[in-house]
Amino acid sequence: MIKVGIIGATGYAGGELVRLLLGHKEAEIKWYGSRSYIDKKYYEVYQNMFQIVDEKCMDDNMEALADQVDVVFTATPQGLCASLVSEEILSKVKVIDLSADFRIKNVKTYEEWYKIEHKAPQFIDEAVYGLCEINREQIKKARLIANPGCYPTCSTLSIYPLLKEGMIDPDTIIIDAKSGTSGAGRGAKLDNLYCEVNENIKAYGVATHRHTPEIEEQLGYAAGKEIRLNFTPHLVPMNRGILITAYASLLRDVTYEEVRAAYDKYYEKERFVRVLDKDVTPQTKWVEGSNYVDVNFKIDPRTKRVIMMGAMDNLVKGAAGQAVQNMNLMFGLNEAEGLAQVPMFP
Amino acid sequence: MIKVGIIGATGYAGGELVRLLLGHKEAEIKWYGSRSYIDKKYYEVYQNMFQIVDEKCMDDNMEALADQVDVVFTATPQGLCASLVSEEILSKVKVIDLSADFRIKNVKTYEEWYKIEHKAPQFIDEAVYGLCEINREQIKKARLIANPGCYPTCSTLSIYPLLKEGMIDPDTIIIDAKSGTSGAGRGAKLDNLYCEVNENIKAYGVATHRHTPEIEEQLGYAAGKEIRLNFTPHLVPMNRGILITAYASLLRDVTYEEVRAAYDKYYEKERFVRVLDKDVTPQTKWVEGSNYVDVNFKIDPRTKRVIMMGAMDNLVKGAAGQAVQNMNLMFGLNEAEGLAQVPMFP
Amino acid sequence: MIKVGIIGATGYAGGELVRLLLGHKEAEIKWYGSRSYIDKKYYEVYQNMFQIVDEKCMDDNMEALADQVDVVFTATPQGLCASLVSEEILSKVKVIDLSADFRIKNVKTYEEWYKIEHKAPQFIDEAVYGLCEINREQIKKARLIANPGCYPTCSTLSIYPLLKEGMIDPDTIIIDAKSGTSGAGRGAKLDNLYCEVNENIKAYGVATHRHTPEIEEQLGYAAGKEIRLNFTPHLVPMNRGILITAYASLLRDVTYEEVRAAYDKYYEKERFVRVLDKDVTPQTKWVEGSNYVDVNFKIDPRTKRVIMMGAMDNLVKGAAGQAVQNMNLMFGLNEAEGLAQVPMFP
Amino acid sequence: MIKVGIIGATGYAGGELVRLLLGHKEAEIKWYGSRSYIDKKYYEVYQNMFQIVDEKCMDDNMEALADQVDVVFTATPQGLCASLVSEEILSKVKVIDLSADFRIKNVKTYEEWYKIEHKAPQFIDEAVYGLCEINREQIKKARLIANPGCYPTCSTLSIYPLLKEGMIDPDTIIIDAKSGTSGAGRGAKLDNLYCEVNENIKAYGVATHRHTPEIEEQLGYAAGKEIRLNFTPHLVPMNRGILITAYASLLRDVTYEEVRAAYDKYYEKERFVRVLDKDVTPQTKWVEGSNYVDVNFKIDPRTKRVIMMGAMDNLVKGAAGQAVQNMNLMFGLNEAEGLAQVPMFP
Repeated sequence: MIKVGIIGATGYAGGELVRLLLGHKEAEIKWYGSRSYIDKKYYEVYQNMFQIVDEKCMDDNMEALADQVDVVFTATPQGLCASLVSEEILSKVKVIDLSADFRIKNVKTYEEWYKIEHKAPQFIDEAVYGLCEINREQIKKARLIANPGCYPTCSTLSIYPLLKEGMIDPDTIIIDAKSGTSGAGRGAKLDNLYCEVNENIKAYGVATHRHTPEIEEQLGYAAGKEIRLNFTPHLVPMNRGILITAYASLLRDVTYEEVRAAYDKYYEKERFVRVLDKDVTPQTKWVEGSNYVDVNFKIDPRTKRVIMMGAMDNLVKGAAGQAVQNMNLMFGLNEAEGLAQVPMFP
Repeated sequence: MIKVGIIGATGYAGGELVRLLLGHKEAEIKWYGSRSYIDKKYYEVYQNMFQIVDEKCMDDNMEALADQVDVVFTATPQGLCASLVSEEILSKVKVIDLSADFRIKNVKTYEEWYKIEHKAPQFIDEAVYGLCEINREQIKKARLIANPGCYPTCSTLSIYPLLKEGMIDPDTIIIDAKSGTSGAGRGAKLDNLYCEVNENIKAYGVATHRHTPEIEEQLGYAAGKEIRLNFTPHLVPMNRGILITAYASLLRDVTYEEVRAAYDKYYEKERFVRVLDKDVTPQTKWVEGSNYVDVNFKIDPRTKRVIMMGAMDNLVKGAAGQAVQNMNLMFGLNEAEGLAQVPMFP
Repeated sequence: MIKVGIIGATGYAGGELVRLLLGHKEAEIKWYGSRSYIDKKYYEVYQNMFQIVDEKCMDDNMEALADQVDVVFTATPQGLCASLVSEEILSKVKVIDLSADFRIKNVKTYEEWYKIEHKAPQFIDEAVYGLCEINREQIKKARLIANPGCYPTCSTLSIYPLLKEGMIDPDTIIIDAKSGTSGAGRGAKLDNLYCEVNENIKAYGVATHRHTPEIEEQLGYAAGKEIRLNFTPHLVPMNRGILITAYASLLRDVTYEEVRAAYDKYYEKERFVRVLDKDVTPQTKWVEGSNYVDVNFKIDPRTKRVIMMGAMDNLVKGAAGQAVQNMNLMFGLNEAEGLAQVPMFP
Repeated sequence: MIKVGIIGATGYAGGELVRLLLGHKEAEIKWYGSRSYIDKKYYEVYQNMFQIVDEKCMDDNMEALADQVDVVFTATPQGLCASLVSEEILSKVKVIDLSADFRIKNVKTYEEWYKIEHKAPQFIDEAVYGLCEINREQIKKARLIANPGCYPTCSTLSIYPLLKEGMIDPDTIIIDAKSGTSGAGRGAKLDNLYCEVNENIKAYGVATHRHTPEIEEQLGYAAGKEIRLNFTPHLVPMNRGILITAYASLLRDVTYEEVRAAYDKYYEKERFVRVLDKDVTPQTKWVEGSNYVDVNFKIDPRTKRVIMMGAMDNLVKGAAGQAVQNMNLMFGLNEAEGLAQVPMFP
């Protein structure tokens, strides 16, 4: 039985981690960390857990945790995980960081986009970017995982095959993304009130969103060169789900079958990436509550562009689910353990 | 491995049965019945099932089914199940009917409220009303289960202890119920269009809803006499969830502890009924996707009434989940098998 | 041209007042009071007002206001208005208070339910309860209006005729109310976050909600005696709208026509109360954005009760619209001026 | 008083026309045409109109209408208006067609995208594309108006200035659009059921949506040459509102002030197009219920692209509101008559 500690267990991603790990046969949560709710029963924060979780919330004590558990998930604001890890910690416990601290290899880029000084740049190189379908082998050996951002996961998986296969022009990529509101977190902010979000849609962070360099880095690896792209997220009146609609110019005439073959090459054997049938567009509702990413594409011969689409649950494959998938890989378990949820509809 | 057939697999309750049974370790779906979609792949009707279910939809053939499976779930319009069962069928296969055909013992009452002639009145007496927490022992021995309606399940469980313990006046019961829109089914009706339901709330079936006699019968058993009550359902702009708010006059002065003890007497050992802590009101979101019913109450000393509240997921405990719970009981399995889902929040 | 000042112009009710007054031909807003946003452009708080309102928010200065305007609306937290009025103020300016400060004639009752000391009890007797359809003549002569609460407006108008006509037993009244989330205000609280409210319904303030004594007082006038009733509000995932479903025992056998005649007696000539056709149930969407209250009823001969229903927009007839209606009456204008909005659907 | 007839008065756009015209001081609706509801009271179809509209629905009789009214609005499926107009009709009555029949000058393009034979190609040249801000002078003199599509209105107005001023490369335009569900109409289709749309987002009509050639034609006029672009609409779980996010490569280095000046050049004096302040992104909620289009832009120096954004209410400026605006221009009235609604928030 893997002993698990969670730092930041009372945010939406933390709550989802708890939901998933409670159904995991080989893991057991030993530490519900939440600085805001210390000594409060966890179920008082999340009443869905009533009579399921009886533990109290505890302080965020990485040292104590490292002695008591096998793996720590940090579902915390940017900067916190970097301030907590050390060689001693990593020698005792595996760390899966759901924040952005170790996602970007170039520390200067991180500091520019996040406006934070990085407290542990010495571990950036070692950290493995936990996009399981792309980096599976490195993840298995990692001590420190940078769990990918929600938008980067969906964007990268949707675009990766065509970039890797050289079918699209990396300089023409535009990603228009739409997210449910749980992505904004559980902080009590006016902008996230029901009446402000409901019956409304808006773009935010236009040309400045911090997931941009993360996507650029990952797609840059696929392209084999640095790339610059446009990424525009939108806030949608729904709880869960990310949909990305990406555009790129085709480098040559391609048939449906050729593009399809590119997707199949990378995803045919993947449990959690589903390449949909021709002309079926991904919908966030079809993956809700599950670890799936549904992808598909449409060639537009009129403009010689391809439209790439991907849908996933931002709290599962976009956060807690992928974190569990990473844990499974790191501990040599069945990669899908605890992640067999059938999407819930409606 | 229990072999399962579903007649009506493509309605919302049918789809939920599939979702739950796919996670059930001792059951296997052998027949996805759906007259409307014969020969169509099931996942084409519910894309969430893509790469999970590969079977095609089949006709609703009860005879063929009875030879091939151990249990048949009928998630079909009123009247269909009654027209399909016979002594021969019931001698071969167990039947769990999610429609109202066998819920009401008085056939005349059924025919008056449902405006249908009952095609198999000879089985009404034998049929067991599948409210597991109340009728557990009879369910274990049954061939034919009348799976309770969504509103009656939530209403009965919320009110039952106080009626049984003689604390409330049966002639004063008023049930004000609120349901998500999946309860209205997947039929393409103008009233259920997004723009008609969204940003709207209304009562419907006022003083005439067909779940009324079902609730009256069940609560009548608890009261030990015939009762008449008011039941008013409302349509709420959300997918899932039923909340009931029930009112009754107290027959004597009671303390919080006495009423609490009455609830505990019946539910303390129940896995799926959670009596919430004092002053915590049930919320539908806290049970979403799970088989839980959350109940609680509030004494109003000013009016000498008690307000009883219950929340559950109408598609799980209110339909497919309870049906699976019944199956587990009938086949001697762990009652909670396949029903361990932690409620999903948000 | 009536000069108008608003104290509390940036809450949801304040914003609605601005929307309605901008379309009023005989009123002009001279003062957008908002302590939280002093010196900020009003349209920066409410971007819908961009290029429509150019004024800045100002402090809440009742003295200055009284010298500059003809009427002051206070859309502020409980207790503030009472702390601002004085004989001098009321001799200079009419005050329409959207808070509860002057709604309840018994100061002890107010202080018990609101847990606030009343700062101006000497004006409680003078204040007129601004339920226009009931107190029209007194309103015309008032200096100080207690604008009714949202739930009390809808509850009272739905029940009043049958109580006044002696058709129902005052001791059996139960009011089950449902409200959109704008009723909770624009404060940044966790409970009102999109993800907490969406796909959810719950009761709150069960047996303790502060609108209870207000409803009891108003219905007591109709009954000609003190009454105690149950009032249970629920939070519904929608922006606007209140629906009330009220129950009471009939004191004698009545026909549809008799009950209908009772409603018509009071509302036939009312512009803003619509008694719907037989068996048409009120829906909040049918009155959205307008000053209408839609009411109807259903007799249940089985239980000898009547179910009374009412729907309105909580921000219009439930707050800002009724406040404008009161202003129109106080200044001898057409009662419907500025309130001719056709409900918006969908 | 202008006498108005509506053919197709019971769709969502038709209902919105009624709402707006009821508040129009110089127009009077004489004919509520609705083939589906002949002889039914209009308020029985739209209960918001109870006690406001007393007329019955009538058949779609263009000949009779032409003799009785001054202007006919056709809010009908594609092809119907073209089958009804004739020289005789147009000599008697002005026609404002809310369908696509006369929007596209190239009849072959129309027939290819709409898969319908055009029944009145002889009037295509005469018809004026009723985008008021662009074609105001021709509209004033027109007999037949092609009221623009919802997506084309928002897309064209958002992009027009930069194309006209030669700032962006016409071959790089990508339009990612998001619409509320009222755009899908009031037909009882499974895809538009509450439970299918709610908590979901998807793209549809990818690379094939019929508004594509309409947008290309209009932007082609601005560019002075034929253009091909990508247009991808998405269905959003909300009733009203369209948001477009458009991308194009800048043809040269530009400052914020230069781009802003381009927008101001065309829209500074426009009542219904609001160019927002720097870094304020358009939100559909800020224009709900009104005839406004809010536009803004963001320069991305990293990619040398500009992101252009626009938000409007699809049923107002995207349909009925613009139709009324066209009527006002055609009859020499104040262009904003009947369109002074302040956006409703929340």
